[in-house]
Amino acid sequence: MILPYQTGRKKYSGGNNLRARQPKSKLKIIPLGGLGEVGKNMTVFEYENDIIVVDCGLAFPGDEMLGIDLVIPDVTYLAKNLDKIRAFIITHGHEDHIGALPYILKEVNVPIYGTKLTNALIEYKLTEHALMDVTTRVVIQDGETIKFGSSFKVEFISSNHSITDTVMLSIWTPVGTVVHTADFKIDYSPIRGKVINLHRLAELGQKGVLALLSDSTNSERLGYTQSERMVGETFFGIFNKYKDRRIMVATFASNVDRVQQVINAASANNRKVAVMGRSMVNVVKIASELGYLDIPTNTLIEVNELKKYTDDQVVIIMTGSQGESMAALSRMSKAEHKQVEIKPGDIVILSATPIPGNEKTVSNVINALAKQGAIVVKDDTHVSGHAAQEEQKLMIALIKPKYFIPVHGEFRHLQAHANTAINMGIAKENIIILSIGDILELDRNSMKVAGTVPSGKVLVDGLGVGDVGNIVLRDRKHLSEDGLLIAVMTLDDAGIVVAGPDIISRGFVYVREAENLMDQARNVVRRTLDKCQRNQVTDWMLIKNYVRDDLRDFVWQKTKRSPMVLPIIMEI
Amino acid sequence: MILPYQTGRKKYSGGNNLRARQPKSKLKIIPLGGLGEVGKNMTVFEYENDIIVVDCGLAFPGDEMLGIDLVIPDVTYLAKNLDKIRAFIITHGHEDHIGALPYILKEVNVPIYGTKLTNALIEYKLTEHALMDVTTRVVIQDGETIKFGSSFKVEFISSNHSITDTVMLSIWTPVGTVVHTADFKIDYSPIRGKVINLHRLAELGQKGVLALLSDSTNSERLGYTQSERMVGETFFGIFNKYKDRRIMVATFASNVDRVQQVINAASANNRKVAVMGRSMVNVVKIASELGYLDIPTNTLIEVNELKKYTDDQVVIIMTGSQGESMAALSRMSKAEHKQVEIKPGDIVILSATPIPGNEKTVSNVINALAKQGAIVVKDDTHVSGHAAQEEQKLMIALIKPKYFIPVHGEFRHLQAHANTAINMGIAKENIIILSIGDILELDRNSMKVAGTVPSGKVLVDGLGVGDVGNIVLRDRKHLSEDGLLIAVMTLDDAGIVVAGPDIISRGFVYVREAENLMDQARNVVRRTLDKCQRNQVTDWMLIKNYVRDDLRDFVWQKTKRSPMVLPIIMEI
Repeated sequence: MILPYQTGRKKYSGGNNLRARQPKSKLKIIPLGGLGEVGKNMTVFEYENDIIVVDCGLAFPGDEMLGIDLVIPDVTYLAKNLDKIRAFIITHGHEDHIGALPYILKEVNVPIYGTKLTNALIEYKLTEHALMDVTTRVVIQDGETIKFGSSFKVEFISSNHSITDTVMLSIWTPVGTVVHTADFKIDYSPIRGKVINLHRLAELGQKGVLALLSDSTNSERLGYTQSERMVGETFFGIFNKYKDRRIMVATFASNVDRVQQVINAASANNRKVAVMGRSMVNVVKIASELGYLDIPTNTLIEVNELKKYTDDQVVIIMTGSQGESMAALSRMSKAEHKQVEIKPGDIVILSATPIPGNEKTVSNVINALAKQGAIVVKDDTHVSGHAAQEEQKLMIALIKPKYFIPVHGEFRHLQAHANTAINMGIAKENIIILSIGDILELDRNSMKVAGTVPSGKVLVDGLGVGDVGNIVLRDRKHLSEDGLLIAVMTLDDAGIVVAGPDIISRGFVYVREAENLMDQARNVVRRTLDKCQRNQVTDWMLIKNYVRDDLRDFVWQKTKRSPMVLPIIMEI
Repeated sequence: MILPYQTGRKKYSGGNNLRARQPKSKLKIIPLGGLGEVGKNMTVFEYENDIIVVDCGLAFPGDEMLGIDLVIPDVTYLAKNLDKIRAFIITHGHEDHIGALPYILKEVNVPIYGTKLTNALIEYKLTEHALMDVTTRVVIQDGETIKFGSSFKVEFISSNHSITDTVMLSIWTPVGTVVHTADFKIDYSPIRGKVINLHRLAELGQKGVLALLSDSTNSERLGYTQSERMVGETFFGIFNKYKDRRIMVATFASNVDRVQQVINAASANNRKVAVMGRSMVNVVKIASELGYLDIPTNTLIEVNELKKYTDDQVVIIMTGSQGESMAALSRMSKAEHKQVEIKPGDIVILSATPIPGNEKTVSNVINALAKQGAIVVKDDTHVSGHAAQEEQKLMIALIKPKYFIPVHGEFRHLQAHANTAINMGIAKENIIILSIGDILELDRNSMKVAGTVPSGKVLVDGLGVGDVGNIVLRDRKHLSEDGLLIAVMTLDDAGIVVAGPDIISRGFVYVREAENLMDQARNVVRRTLDKCQRNQVTDWMLIKNYVRDDLRDFVWQKTKRSPMVLPIIMEI
């Protein structure tokens, strides 16, 4: 039942009456992540004195972010409006929706709302960062509606995705209802939980929805995304075909339903299951404790018990489906794993497709496994967790939003999703593709970008959050491509060389074979220093510049390379 | 007509009589590239005093080869056997078959055999490297048979691939005939040239072939690779749909037939064609001069003439389909191109699929183009140049080899191709997956790996060939991930510090925000130096080690990062 919506100012009955008196303020929707790039989802909803933040994800660094561990959204805007923020509302437990919490809670410590599994995964993270005692979590159930401040009421609607306990949101605001699908697919035969609540979506659409924010990840894919259940059928087929072989399955730790299906196939074939990889072990533990995994007794075994069983009696479930170099699968493929050695005839099921950018790494792992004689199975062993075009259309058809805002996905995906909406009759001017940091202002009659807030990527490197910026990355890139050449010398206060110049290089050229080049480089610096002295150049910055320029020219001419040249002058 | 094969020792009639008296020596097949990794194809055939080398390609560096420009095969073995080598035989003009010639000819200067277009592309390269006068090229025609030394006779058989004038090889040797497909597909409706010479392949199979080396690139793909002609139909459809728009096509420069089809669609729609990108301009020039491109008069225009025409009157053909950062398309997508600016409504046809590893880069270019309003078309705009499973089966069925050796492709592809051969009834023990450097010894009754020769990757960086090795790459990787921390100090001969210690960092941390950290690091070094003096440590190596260890520990504890720590001690 939908309660009538109360604010201090007026009665507002659940967003179903768009013709009612126009409230004075506008709703602001500000994406701080998740648009135009994969990962780090975060959307801010602001109305007068209230802010709620949907999701708080991290992204893994791109190839150009050398040495960076992870990327979180810039939350300068949230830090400035701390007193307004009522909650983080988390739609599901994937890293790109929860991963930035430990970092951002340090600046923006507000209660976190999520379903049972989502909350458990968050709590696991917060425990690791010793943040349990200083933060507040609220476990919600799908179907529940919670009021935030005097401007928002959020209904949690059960949904389908590649992690169980995912919800989408219906957000009542004084200007109308906004539906945010977060990540979704439509699974008519989910492994656990319900089919996405189509009835409730239809009801909301009937009452009138001001705006729909919908998942665009698969908007270039025609047709429907298959049910998770299909993968289980494949598993049974593979287990049946390779009855006498050892079977290993690599998949995403967070895909609890996928893990369940491996366990189902294993137990139907009287195989024991060993779990490998830190995150897989954790998720299996958390999910089974909460009742999200049915594991028959005496099915799970420890990895060190594997040797007690024959090949046809075991299954190994593990991480590493993205070719992550430190994960179990990758180490096994290189014969570097301490406990499990791949042997000819082993069956390795890759139950995942490579995330864009990981294709080559995954292919390398497949090659390495094949070289050791493993049979790698990867056809029909995975389904996406995101809606394809026909599902996206069903969502738009049910919700019938006035305004359509494609979210989650790269620009090309947002654009394709916008085209789908246009083809369904939504007016072009009622569709907007936002960029991170845009302030979208909405009321019942208008929608426009009215400015921007600070936004972008904050790079996390070791303990440092945000202390690696463009200059550091530019230097790392330069060093990575051509290495480094240091010219170091000690001058007295009259500018006379008393030690050096010495030339030291790293990552530039194999020095033993380039001794001659180094000697010549030293002479180049000597000549430059002589020239400076003759011309009475005593400003060290100038001397450094001359040394740098002359060395750079010399090295380019000799090698056609441009190492970073670093002149160091010491004074005694 | 097949001439009877003559050697000094015996009459041998074209490899069709495997039951004849067994010659004493064995044929050696030694792959020096092209197995287990993409690119840099090179296969050595050796019999007694004769060697022929098939193809001489380069590879582009993997992500882990930081700063490397290109990769060529290690030809130590060839350099040692220079007097035996009769020829480089080049099957077609792609970089991964001709690209290493300019580097390797400097060590191994033997005549180069190739068809007309292949030869022209090689000559273009040799001209750039000023090697035309010191090398010998021989232009061959398909159907021709040429004798090399007293052991080999090579017949050039017309083939299909994504570059015109491709041949495969039938190599007569004293122990039997070996067929090397090189890269191939079966195109029943090629744009130029003939359908692959199926009749000749059937004839060879009938006479008896000892071994088949066959292209494995697409051995995981079911069915048939489509004809190049299909792409032309797509082009006509796109040109027809977007009659009033400016159309741009990005594709591989070397795919002359693809370029021809763009020109056909352009001229049928009365559009002028501008060509952009250095390699595209060169290939169009070379191919049209040789008669491999039919360009109606007054069709080609210069890029600076584009402004004279309206959008519906022009087509731009360009490079950059792999997202190469310096290519025309990538620069346009970032609005960094001097001559052409993308505008909303422009049609950009991506007539290529990303080579493995380039997926993310290509996707970034698509996003950037879409953000500027371009419509990116990429469905049915490309076909592969490599045979899929059914074509590979046809090849095996026609040739009926005794021994099967899958080549060209990563290990997983070689393995899949081997499985196809097994399923076709070739005995498992008659199939071998080679590694680079293996010496495969063959005669009429046996095939086995009998040893290895030096082999591997030689890295080219600027002017340096092979002077960047593992140490340099390891340093580049280290620098790229965590940057550099230099501690520099000047000591007098008594070991007393007379200048410094100074701390300098690059790529480590944004220094302005880390001044405090740098000060502390300096104190760490000071303390270490004091300690050394107190303990009368005067060996500089030891002092450096202590400084390095202490600094490394301090930095790890403070930042959880491990920059390269470089202590430099100067002496006055």
